[in-house]
Amino acid sequence: MGSMEAFPGDVSPPGRTAATGEGIGIEELALAARNHGLPLETLRYEVTPPGLHYVLVHYDIPAADAGGWRLCVGGRVRTPLELSPRDLAGFPAVTHRVTMECAGNGRARLSPRPVSQPWLVEAVGTADWTGVPLRTVLAEAGVEPGAVEAVFTGADHGVERGVEQDYRRSLPLAVATGDDPEVLIAYAMNGRPLPPQHGYPLRLVVPGWYGMAHVKWLCGITLVDAPFTGFQQVVAYRYRLVSDGPDDPGEPVTRMAPRALMVPPGFPDFMSRVRIVRPGPVPLEGRAWSGHGPVVRVEVSADEGASWTVAEPAPPGAHRWAWQGWRCTWTATPGRHDLLVRATDAGGRTQPLEQHWNRGGFGNNLVQRVPVLCC
Amino acid sequence: MGSMEAFPGDVSPPGRTAATGEGIGIEELALAARNHGLPLETLRYEVTPPGLHYVLVHYDIPAADAGGWRLCVGGRVRTPLELSPRDLAGFPAVTHRVTMECAGNGRARLSPRPVSQPWLVEAVGTADWTGVPLRTVLAEAGVEPGAVEAVFTGADHGVERGVEQDYRRSLPLAVATGDDPEVLIAYAMNGRPLPPQHGYPLRLVVPGWYGMAHVKWLCGITLVDAPFTGFQQVVAYRYRLVSDGPDDPGEPVTRMAPRALMVPPGFPDFMSRVRIVRPGPVPLEGRAWSGHGPVVRVEVSADEGASWTVAEPAPPGAHRWAWQGWRCTWTATPGRHDLLVRATDAGGRTQPLEQHWNRGGFGNNLVQRVPVLCC
Repeated sequence: MGSMEAFPGDVSPPGRTAATGEGIGIEELALAARNHGLPLETLRYEVTPPGLHYVLVHYDIPAADAGGWRLCVGGRVRTPLELSPRDLAGFPAVTHRVTMECAGNGRARLSPRPVSQPWLVEAVGTADWTGVPLRTVLAEAGVEPGAVEAVFTGADHGVERGVEQDYRRSLPLAVATGDDPEVLIAYAMNGRPLPPQHGYPLRLVVPGWYGMAHVKWLCGITLVDAPFTGFQQVVAYRYRLVSDGPDDPGEPVTRMAPRALMVPPGFPDFMSRVRIVRPGPVPLEGRAWSGHGPVVRVEVSADEGASWTVAEPAPPGAHRWAWQGWRCTWTATPGRHDLLVRATDAGGRTQPLEQHWNRGGFGNNLVQRVPVLCC
Repeated sequence: MGSMEAFPGDVSPPGRTAATGEGIGIEELALAARNHGLPLETLRYEVTPPGLHYVLVHYDIPAADAGGWRLCVGGRVRTPLELSPRDLAGFPAVTHRVTMECAGNGRARLSPRPVSQPWLVEAVGTADWTGVPLRTVLAEAGVEPGAVEAVFTGADHGVERGVEQDYRRSLPLAVATGDDPEVLIAYAMNGRPLPPQHGYPLRLVVPGWYGMAHVKWLCGITLVDAPFTGFQQVVAYRYRLVSDGPDDPGEPVTRMAPRALMVPPGFPDFMSRVRIVRPGPVPLEGRAWSGHGPVVRVEVSADEGASWTVAEPAPPGAHRWAWQGWRCTWTATPGRHDLLVRATDAGGRTQPLEQHWNRGGFGNNLVQRVPVLCC
């Protein structure tokens, strides 16, 4: 058990892209029914209520008992630690407001579509995460010379593309021990214990990085002296630009690309989600973020990007790893319109009007398109 | 604005069923990404944490302000009322543990597939709902002779199949004023204010009925002297057995059909969700419910229903409108298996092995099928 041969291809299928015109399949649908995005109208909340924050679970939500839970810190450290959630609550607590987005957000908009969790644009949320800085715990254990990465193990267990595994990801030592961003071992979300689906009782929070780095149900931290080569590090979560190059190592998925989202104006049709607005001034608002730094420009277009109206984002203020609100007014005239919105960050990174395809469907920050009928 | 002509067919499409082999479309996917089911492993919780409870929103989650919220009670009553959430908190509070299921649960398993929210099997959850009995508030208002139904209005506004509407449903007066089940105007879920997606600040809870009756964001109750003929009462939420009979009035969707669900055993493959177990005894557990009364029998089959193992459900106990736990042991042998489970209620209603198709895809309580690989 556990070898790749143990799992036939229909039990644990290889990665693939959908054929031209192939609709969403029953397996993608089963993932979409379990996991969920942020209903876009709830972008109105600066801090997302927990049940509205996006959720992506690779395998199962573990049956966790906080009383018996232990976080084991080992590998290249002077003093291996075994910490209970109560032990962690004894360290000085830190709270960070963090916007978190799934690396696969936008995947189902790609053509051809990589077959996996089929996010459209809604896999995001913002929460106040409270916990202990990872660097505090690593200092307590004492990092030995030669350690280059910290490997994080979650209790979520399953099979993926033939590989049986606990969910496991690493961070370079400089990120794990850095203070910008300050990585947290979090035990509370919005002032309450973590909900089961958000990692109860302990999870990692890595401000600015896509969700795959924020390991949930955290039970192990191992300092290693060579880069980690586990499945979620070198097979999954890589940008690979060629659809059939199996030997392409790709580039690692790390920080969030810039994105702006709009609260869809007016009211929707149930099935098409097209928005209905009345003629005249329509207030538009939303949120924008980038894992690389502050968003400095948000722009809205109603003419397919021929012209853009500037919607100044609020300054990042005290919460520099959280999304920034933006507002503007659009004057609606009778007929059909597609509203586009895009963000640009301080480093000049922005959102494309045409897709940047990659094999895993990661980091697709194509501009949001909101179809509107004004009548 | 508001007439059926205002909304072209691609903005507000008519009801339809998918063509043979037609995959899930982008519009169904957008609904699946917003709404979500219960991750089946969390059937382990007798009371579902709010963020794991299924959610189905027809239009948008309203931006509700509890301070300014008013529930208006009018129509055929002696004393029209205008009640704030604070007013309602002044009545004696009642708490009921209630299992709630979407009437469309199982829709995406039907062939041909009615095109709407594409639930597989997971649109369910159980919560402790606290509020005021509806009959208490109706007694305060004084129901006048001639009233036959109570019509409930939610603040959720949108368009559906060409009809602009607030979400609105009715109950027969005998149900609205009855004590078995006792209908609640709820303001708390699991001891906390309702989350936005569950109807903050007020919602109806109708124990035993499918979710469409539990009107969220409740702002109006009107007693009427003729049966309500609104969209959600006579167009949607009807059992219609003929796929193209537009004049078939159908039968109303009311109480939940019996259903048992299993916590999928072992651990999953990420993409296929097939479960991996080891040979030998495998404990199976789950929940079962019926809106018609207690579940008296739960059975598991590993041979396509040729034989069934009895898994006694726990007695309903104090929570007669909540699901009942069940357990049994299955001895796994190497190879592929499909586990089936079905519930039978006190009235002899049970779950079919073959689909009972209807045009809207309601009440499809086909037995759950859990594919397992034992290795």
